[in-house]
Amino acid sequence: MLTRSVEGIDHDGVRRSVNVVTERPLTIFLNSREIVTVMTIGDYPEYLATGFLFNQGMLHKEDEVTSVDFDSDLDVVVVRTRQETDYEDKLRRKTRTSGCAVGTVFGDMMDGLRGVRLPAAPVRAGWLYSLARQIGATPSLYLAAGAIHGTVLCRQDVPLGYMEDVGRHNAVDKIAGWMFGTGMIAHDKILYTTGRLTSEMVIKTARMGIPALASRSGFTAWGVEIAREVGLTLIGRMRGRRFMCLSGEDRLVWDADFIEDSDLREVGVGFHDGKDVPDG
Amino acid sequence: MLTRSVEGIDHDGVRRSVNVVTERPLTIFLNSREIVTVMTIGDYPEYLATGFLFNQGMLHKEDEVTSVDFDSDLDVVVVRTRQETDYEDKLRRKTRTSGCAVGTVFGDMMDGLRGVRLPAAPVRAGWLYSLARQIGATPSLYLAAGAIHGTVLCRQDVPLGYMEDVGRHNAVDKIAGWMFGTGMIAHDKILYTTGRLTSEMVIKTARMGIPALASRSGFTAWGVEIAREVGLTLIGRMRGRRFMCLSGEDRLVWDADFIEDSDLREVGVGFHDGKDVPDG
Repeated sequence: MLTRSVEGIDHDGVRRSVNVVTERPLTIFLNSREIVTVMTIGDYPEYLATGFLFNQGMLHKEDEVTSVDFDSDLDVVVVRTRQETDYEDKLRRKTRTSGCAVGTVFGDMMDGLRGVRLPAAPVRAGWLYSLARQIGATPSLYLAAGAIHGTVLCRQDVPLGYMEDVGRHNAVDKIAGWMFGTGMIAHDKILYTTGRLTSEMVIKTARMGIPALASRSGFTAWGVEIAREVGLTLIGRMRGRRFMCLSGEDRLVWDADFIEDSDLREVGVGFHDGKDVPDG
Repeated sequence: MLTRSVEGIDHDGVRRSVNVVTERPLTIFLNSREIVTVMTIGDYPEYLATGFLFNQGMLHKEDEVTSVDFDSDLDVVVVRTRQETDYEDKLRRKTRTSGCAVGTVFGDMMDGLRGVRLPAAPVRAGWLYSLARQIGATPSLYLAAGAIHGTVLCRQDVPLGYMEDVGRHNAVDKIAGWMFGTGMIAHDKILYTTGRLTSEMVIKTARMGIPALASRSGFTAWGVEIAREVGLTLIGRMRGRRFMCLSGEDRLVWDADFIEDSDLREVGVGFHDGKDVPDG
């Protein structure tokens, strides 16, 4: 049950039920270390845990994951690797010197990007329009209860998987965990998010090795800067036939004439008008 | 400069400039401890730091803050207290046993709420309508560049301060830091947020001692549950004359007849239609 009916009163004082998204804490362990407690709607806890660890640079492709155990009573996931990871070693050293490792997380994320150059995969405008149309029409928790984020992994104009969550980056972490767990290749994918194109979102996408990130929402300056550095194609404000590309524009292929205008007229329209959805 | 102009190309391949919000890392120290690095638009770093520490339960009203120093070259804020805080002591003990304190943060936030019962302050429907109208008409980064969150501290129908940020909870933390720094009383205030009414948002508001939280966005189930436990009046989906109250409905005062319909017709309308803005 990812949504629940809750009673309240409306503006006329009338008692009404509304569907709301449920959320619960999930504590992620890497071997014997407690790493973090995140708030989540509760689906795919194993993907969320491994994806979080991977996107934070705590787990690498080389690490051999031996088990991922979810305990639904304790709301705990334990990710175990054959050998101790780099991160555990780093954490022990860090702990010895300064007493806590919270502050290292962001630095580690950036470190993992040094020297990264994503492949110059072409992105067809026609794929973008088609993806926007399909994703807008997908049944989702968002449509059922609102107040939630979605991330969709796509190849060309095909949405492969749609993850949602209430937490800021959980949806993209679940996608990362799914890709990590199944050994999926990244260089032919496009990531679509309902959220803003912030530095954190850009870093996560680049870490995952995905060369294109699209959103109906807006940009932040640093998100754009990092995207340009690592060669990520960055497309924002994507609604109907409109979008803005602020990085990787030389990879866009203008094939949109092949698409009938009538197919696109209603896409994204009516959702909101002209402004970015704040989502952070 | 909180926004910057960035060049890209649009859906027609035309080169255009768009305004984007800038963000930068800010590392917060409590005395000699590095606590966290957050992403922020960069205004009010001192309020953000003290508000973050306060809302996470790392700093208490009893702690005597002797200085808050911001170093703009290093992007660092150091909050110093006369005596070592509870949290530093807790952190040292925790660090000794498990090596890291990341996982304690959420638990500490909930701990701070045990036994909290907010005062049953009345909330007039007329105030809500008037606040929505005023806040919607306030010049903001959101209007200038989108992709940002706002939190407004209000008393009755008067918006007292409007803070914005790109990070998830930075805007409300800045409000907390402002209140903390000026010793403002909380029990006669209403907090308005552009974001969703999640458990974290509810916990922060309750910790600040503010008895009412309103948003144009939606709810999560746990947010509602905690609000009911601590006696927080929770109003969501507030647009124009419409809203839903899922906690504290007995405190609502139905004075809205005093307000002319024509004043309200355009409020919030056109922003988006009928759906919650996902924002996490």
